Amino acid sequence: MPDVMFDRIALIGIGLIGSSIARDIKALGLARQVVISSRSADTLKRAEELALGTSYVTAAAEAVRDADLVIVSVPVGASEAVAREIAEHLKPGVIVTDVGSTKASVIAQMAPHMPDYVHFIPGHPLAGTEKSGPDAGFPGLFKGRWCIFTPLENTDPAALSKLKAFWEALGSRVDEMDPVHHDKVLAIVSHLPHIIAYNIVGTADDLETVTESEVIKYSASGFRDFTRLAASDPTMWRDVCLHNKDAILEMLARFSEDLAYLQRAIRWGEGDKLFELFSRTRDVRRSIIQAGQDVDAPDFGRHVLDK
Amino acid sequence: MPDVMFDRIALIGIGLIGSSIARDIKALGLARQVVISSRSADTLKRAEELALGTSYVTAAAEAVRDADLVIVSVPVGASEAVAREIAEHLKPGVIVTDVGSTKASVIAQMAPHMPDYVHFIPGHPLAGTEKSGPDAGFPGLFKGRWCIFTPLENTDPAALSKLKAFWEALGSRVDEMDPVHHDKVLAIVSHLPHIIAYNIVGTADDLETVTESEVIKYSASGFRDFTRLAASDPTMWRDVCLHNKDAILEMLARFSEDLAYLQRAIRWGEGDKLFELFSRTRDVRRSIIQAGQDVDAPDFGRHVLDK
Ligand SMILES: NC(=O)c1ccc[n+]([C@@H]2O[C@H](COP(=O)([O-])OP(=O)(O)OC[C@H]3O[C@@H](n4cnc5c(N)ncnc54)[C@H](OP(=O)(O)O)[C@@H]3O)[C@@H](O)[C@H]2O)c1
Ligand SMILES: NC(=O)c1ccc[n+]([C@@H]2O[C@H](COP(=O)([O-])OP(=O)(O)OC[C@H]3O[C@@H](n4cnc5c(N)ncnc54)[C@H](OP(=O)(O)O)[C@@H]3O)[C@@H](O)[C@H]2O)c1
Repeated sequence: MPDVMFDRIALIGIGLIGSSIARDIKALGLARQVVISSRSADTLKRAEELALGTSYVTAAAEAVRDADLVIVSVPVGASEAVAREIAEHLKPGVIVTDVGSTKASVIAQMAPHMPDYVHFIPGHPLAGTEKSGPDAGFPGLFKGRWCIFTPLENTDPAALSKLKAFWEALGSRVDEMDPVHHDKVLAIVSHLPHIIAYNIVGTADDLETVTESEVIKYSASGFRDFTRLAASDPTMWRDVCLHNKDAILEMLARFSEDLAYLQRAIRWGEGDKLFELFSRTRDVRRSIIQAGQDVDAPDFGRHVLDK
Repeated sequence: MPDVMFDRIALIGIGLIGSSIARDIKALGLARQVVISSRSADTLKRAEELALGTSYVTAAAEAVRDADLVIVSVPVGASEAVAREIAEHLKPGVIVTDVGSTKASVIAQMAPHMPDYVHFIPGHPLAGTEKSGPDAGFPGLFKGRWCIFTPLENTDPAALSKLKAFWEALGSRVDEMDPVHHDKVLAIVSHLPHIIAYNIVGTADDLETVTESEVIKYSASGFRDFTRLAASDPTMWRDVCLHNKDAILEMLARFSEDLAYLQRAIRWGEGDKLFELFSRTRDVRRSIIQAGQDVDAPDFGRHVLDK
């Protein structure tokens, strides 16, 4: 088990991501003190009931006092307000990081507020589920998943390795990337899939020729897969769409262009074109399983759980 | 355990669906004899190694001789050839059914060839995985899933109830529907989801700004969900697209229209519209879980299997 890595960690935001981090810190003994902050009394109370930290305060400004590591885990659209609130209460030498799903926007929102005696290192753990809130978190969420840092120029190497060691203690593998490239990568591997899932579930919900109850009854033939992503937190995803607009619009344009090609192949009965696409996509799944990024069981192993 | 329901069952096609039916028939003792037929020697041999039936023949014409129930489980585009081959070898009073994912086309392909002393009852079990071939099947695949019949006019009620009882013995719930309506329902709950999944995986594979290895590494943030459907059998899905063209094109048009609306909301930063859609889609998943059509575990329970 890793030793204590930080004397005092402040967690700003204690939903799915924040509370999973809290559970790992506790289980692994990575900090002496863990101060938890959430803007609502309800969430904060729940965090305390779950014993996720060592103290609980509503004000983020108060939570960060004397902290050696501050992790901001709130919807990306709230990043600037949080940065503004905590800025002057940060102690010199503190590492401030975040977990937001978009990076260029978070940097634009937070960096200008960070005093120069603070190590601000933007981060994004690529792990999660469709659930939210402090009850949704669990220990081990980040195990085997990637965590991407998008460090600013002149980032202190010692602070960077310390944060890296922290995420590795949680079981993550760490990568570094330029924030604009991060946002493009995430647009295709995460944002577009969620948007498409929301869209198809919306389309199905609005049909007149097929009823909603039919959609639900017969959903096991494929549709249900999309409803998982489309059950994700609306605030989080609204913010992602608003804060990674350019990359998302670029990927949407590519997707629509390809879909038009596919639609045309269906209209004109071009079986060869369909077969060609449907064959090469198989390999992508095979590679993902080989890379340890998905379970190998058919149907995501649902039949195992069904028993 | 149900009693023997048929003296002799012939299974034409012994892939994922055919072999799952075979496993259930055997486990439940629903037939005295099970004749298995598949066009290739390899598949037939594998079926025999797995001891899925009581006899094994290449020619469908031979397999159906003296059968009381014939179940055709081949790609929908092969339905006419199979019907033509078996027609004159069917015994009077036999029930002939299929499991094809489209129904109007299968009826158009098969019904004209069926002698009038045969009960032809088209069917479609809404169960499956992304795998194919005789090794992919397993007992219990149809448990808790719907099986939709699209009976022709003047179908014999006794034959219909017998086939219904058979699927119920496999654990299915049975519905009846007009074939054209079936094809519309399936276009939205199954065909569109698969086409969209194939498309997004294709788009990701073709990008220049994001590499394939990045897509694979970071796929756990949403993308990997789509790769499951996009790993389904290319022949089966080419045939579905070619044989349910009108309904699929109708659903694709609706989907694209809705996506254009969403894209515009992203472009113009209309957070309210995004939030409204992202909120109402949550309820659909909740209803699906309540209806017993998906597991309740976050992330399809992958984290459970990961341990
Ligand atoms: N969910 C995922 O799969 C995932 C994966 C990777 C990264 N992320 C990123 O992680 C961050 C947190 O996501 P999550 O899933 O943990 O969310 P969550 O479960 O909904 O929790 C959100 C937390 O942020 C607080 N919060 C919400 N709105 C706020 C605001 N306007 N100002 C200040 N605090 C606010 C909430 O406080 P109250 O409850 O007290 O209101 C709660 O503590 C987001 O930036 C998201 O993009 C999410
Ligand atoms: N997969 C699903 O999730 C699912 C769900 C519900 C319904 N269905 C429907 O069930 C049917 C079978 O699907 P499956 O998943 O079981 O497929 P599969 O695992 O690929 O097996 C296909 C079977 O059909 C045979 N076959 C293939 N092409 C043929 C042809 N041109 N002529 C005669 N036989 C041929 C194969 O024989 P050889 O191996 O000997 O070539 C094999 O026995 C399809 O109509 C599909 O639409 C599938």
